[in-house]
Amino acid sequence: MNIPKSNLKRIVVIGSGFAGIQFIKNLNVEKYQIVLLDKHNYHTFQPLLYQVATAGLEPDSIAYTVRHIFEKEAVAGNFYFRIAKINKIEASTNTIFSDIGTLTYDKLVISTGSKTNYYGNENIEKFAMSMKTIPEALDLRSLILHNFEDATVTNNEVEKERLMNYVIVGAGPTGVELAGSLAELKNHVLPNDYPELDIKKMNIHLVDATDRVLVSMSEEASKNAQKYLEEMGVNIHFGIIVKDYDGTKVITNKQSFETNTLIWSAGVTGNLIFGINNTSQEKGRYLVDEHNKIINHNNVYAIGDVALMKSDVKFANGHPMVAQVAMQQGKNLANNLANTLNNKPLNNFIYNDRGSMATIGRNKAVVDLDKIKFKGFFAWIVWMFVHLVSLVGFRNKVVALINWLIQYFSYDKHVRLIIRPFKRKVFEEVTSFRNID
Amino acid sequence: MNIPKSNLKRIVVIGSGFAGIQFIKNLNVEKYQIVLLDKHNYHTFQPLLYQVATAGLEPDSIAYTVRHIFEKEAVAGNFYFRIAKINKIEASTNTIFSDIGTLTYDKLVISTGSKTNYYGNENIEKFAMSMKTIPEALDLRSLILHNFEDATVTNNEVEKERLMNYVIVGAGPTGVELAGSLAELKNHVLPNDYPELDIKKMNIHLVDATDRVLVSMSEEASKNAQKYLEEMGVNIHFGIIVKDYDGTKVITNKQSFETNTLIWSAGVTGNLIFGINNTSQEKGRYLVDEHNKIINHNNVYAIGDVALMKSDVKFANGHPMVAQVAMQQGKNLANNLANTLNNKPLNNFIYNDRGSMATIGRNKAVVDLDKIKFKGFFAWIVWMFVHLVSLVGFRNKVVALINWLIQYFSYDKHVRLIIRPFKRKVFEEVTSFRNID
Repeated sequence: MNIPKSNLKRIVVIGSGFAGIQFIKNLNVEKYQIVLLDKHNYHTFQPLLYQVATAGLEPDSIAYTVRHIFEKEAVAGNFYFRIAKINKIEASTNTIFSDIGTLTYDKLVISTGSKTNYYGNENIEKFAMSMKTIPEALDLRSLILHNFEDATVTNNEVEKERLMNYVIVGAGPTGVELAGSLAELKNHVLPNDYPELDIKKMNIHLVDATDRVLVSMSEEASKNAQKYLEEMGVNIHFGIIVKDYDGTKVITNKQSFETNTLIWSAGVTGNLIFGINNTSQEKGRYLVDEHNKIINHNNVYAIGDVALMKSDVKFANGHPMVAQVAMQQGKNLANNLANTLNNKPLNNFIYNDRGSMATIGRNKAVVDLDKIKFKGFFAWIVWMFVHLVSLVGFRNKVVALINWLIQYFSYDKHVRLIIRPFKRKVFEEVTSFRNID
Repeated sequence: MNIPKSNLKRIVVIGSGFAGIQFIKNLNVEKYQIVLLDKHNYHTFQPLLYQVATAGLEPDSIAYTVRHIFEKEAVAGNFYFRIAKINKIEASTNTIFSDIGTLTYDKLVISTGSKTNYYGNENIEKFAMSMKTIPEALDLRSLILHNFEDATVTNNEVEKERLMNYVIVGAGPTGVELAGSLAELKNHVLPNDYPELDIKKMNIHLVDATDRVLVSMSEEASKNAQKYLEEMGVNIHFGIIVKDYDGTKVITNKQSFETNTLIWSAGVTGNLIFGINNTSQEKGRYLVDEHNKIINHNNVYAIGDVALMKSDVKFANGHPMVAQVAMQQGKNLANNLANTLNNKPLNNFIYNDRGSMATIGRNKAVVDLDKIKFKGFFAWIVWMFVHLVSLVGFRNKVVALINWLIQYFSYDKHVRLIIRPFKRKVFEEVTSFRNID
């Protein structure tokens, strides 16, 4: 990988998500040589991916290059970044094998986050859309817009129904925010773009196996979010378990749905790397001790979504896979490495849950804080403020804010460009609508 | 194509560039049924493509969806847009054959613009990068950024040289603006991103067969632009004819260049459609009369880059292939159709050349107007103003302006995201840099 030898201990970090970034930012970078590996050259602000998918924002507002984030550290000389795909870890020799060569480490920090969990259903994995990365969000955007273009061309009513139906599986924050955003497209944007289509026939189905939306939030938040969604025209179905999908029809334990677009936001699982032994894993995540060290290892750590910690009393089944946990674990691990250098005792990780929030549409959001829960316009302002200040970089904040302001006043979502048409993985054409005039 | 029958005459327009858009915008839309076909769902502001390629702007600033441009016309009910690839025109039966079906027309307007001209050199076509569309500009951006990522990994000096050398063929406005923009990356952005690399070793070669840059502008503008480029560190080579390129080495009539990235801006040719007979073509463009009607046809018109008109006395060899000509021809044709309806005489097309301009870098631009030529900061402000007001849509203007302001004050170009790594068309890997540590 062309990383120079150094007298300093080498810490290798895999993954530039919230956990990895916070870990390095809190590290005393003069004491180590740090190598960060990621398959992309940017950090993604995942909570806003749904806005990229629904034509609200371009990727440049929610992503930030890793080299820019660590410019100071790199200029100082102890920080190296490489785009790499990891093939294997060999903990016995402290070695990483990747597509750009091998690298040895003194300490390894795995912050690879999570990936979509299809629970082993291969058909769904083949045909459903997911939304964990920027390319996936852009593919979903292209598919949605292309569906409506195709709907103008066909005069087959079944095909038109499939093209205009959307089924979102999983009513967690991603599913709820995406459903709300699609409803805004339906209510404010698409009728102007497609006067030839009867956009009222567009159906947005949000289905979940449980009996409420936003099950990780308070019952009050669930109730309010559901009310908002229903007001906006989203069809919510509870107690639904999706069994199969062939690209045109969703089979569930109850009714079936005709749709060209199934969006899978029903679960995630740790993004594991080949080589860490199975006894250190549980539920698709790495089992870690109270200091985020992977059990049965001496110098390999996992932080963020990929880590499963049972020592934090309130979260004995593991922490929620959210940005706040990832950032706090990254910071705690960095502090503990400093403590080790200074012969101080280590701090056990205890998650400080600052609350959670979700936005459904303009002036419609729900916020759960420790002592207080609220909703509506003020919640929506709080949501925007928190997300704006969390975006990395001044320019990203300004560009996102400008886009939101213009959307707010114009009731429009502007980035409806189909730059790269989405090609379905398996077959090129579900629909066939060749006809004369 | 599912276009409803109408009592109105049907005008089909192929291509949503400057010419096609202006034509429809100036048409009395109540008198016709208008069908616009394009392979993309957006209009591209091509003069700023080089900024997308060099990480200055995202596509959403320089593109605008066709449906948004013609929202009013579509709601009124006489305008239809379809994403389509045209296979053939059959003028004898007034029929268009496309990937989404066939369509008959009463009048056909071809505004398909131009495409890159490789002058029959298949190797160059295979291995060179071009920049006529947004996907091409994004590919070039990905390749440039990936080159530097790869350069950090290799310790083979020849490979590193190839990755850090850029050869731009053709010193017209595109080549000059791209060279200037690459020089800004070299001087202000890349040294911070890649402290491990010696960015001084990056070479930007601008080569041209003639003896000056911007040959379509005044000699004064050429001289000033050349001086600016040289100050910024661009190597300019005149009298160079590129003979061959294999993805690593450029062969010319004089010296050769080792480079992974050859950017071809040496010429364009009309984007012809199969079916219009050869006697109506010359130099890769459709021969048109003084009203833009294709010769030997009664109801088929060509406007913009794809049209070759010899009747305009000052431009007996054809008009320059620029936006101004395209827009004026579109407008003139629309007015002439109105004149026909009103039994008024037709207006011959006469190009009103308002001047030309090019920007090389911050505070560095050249402007040729009819009576006056100027350069420097004021020219640069004029360039920015003209391009900002020409962008379609309020939001695009605001987002581009914000980006330019932040770039101006930060000396930075922010959209350095490699969203989709560029895959070279022919072989996956020119370079091979596997090594241990």
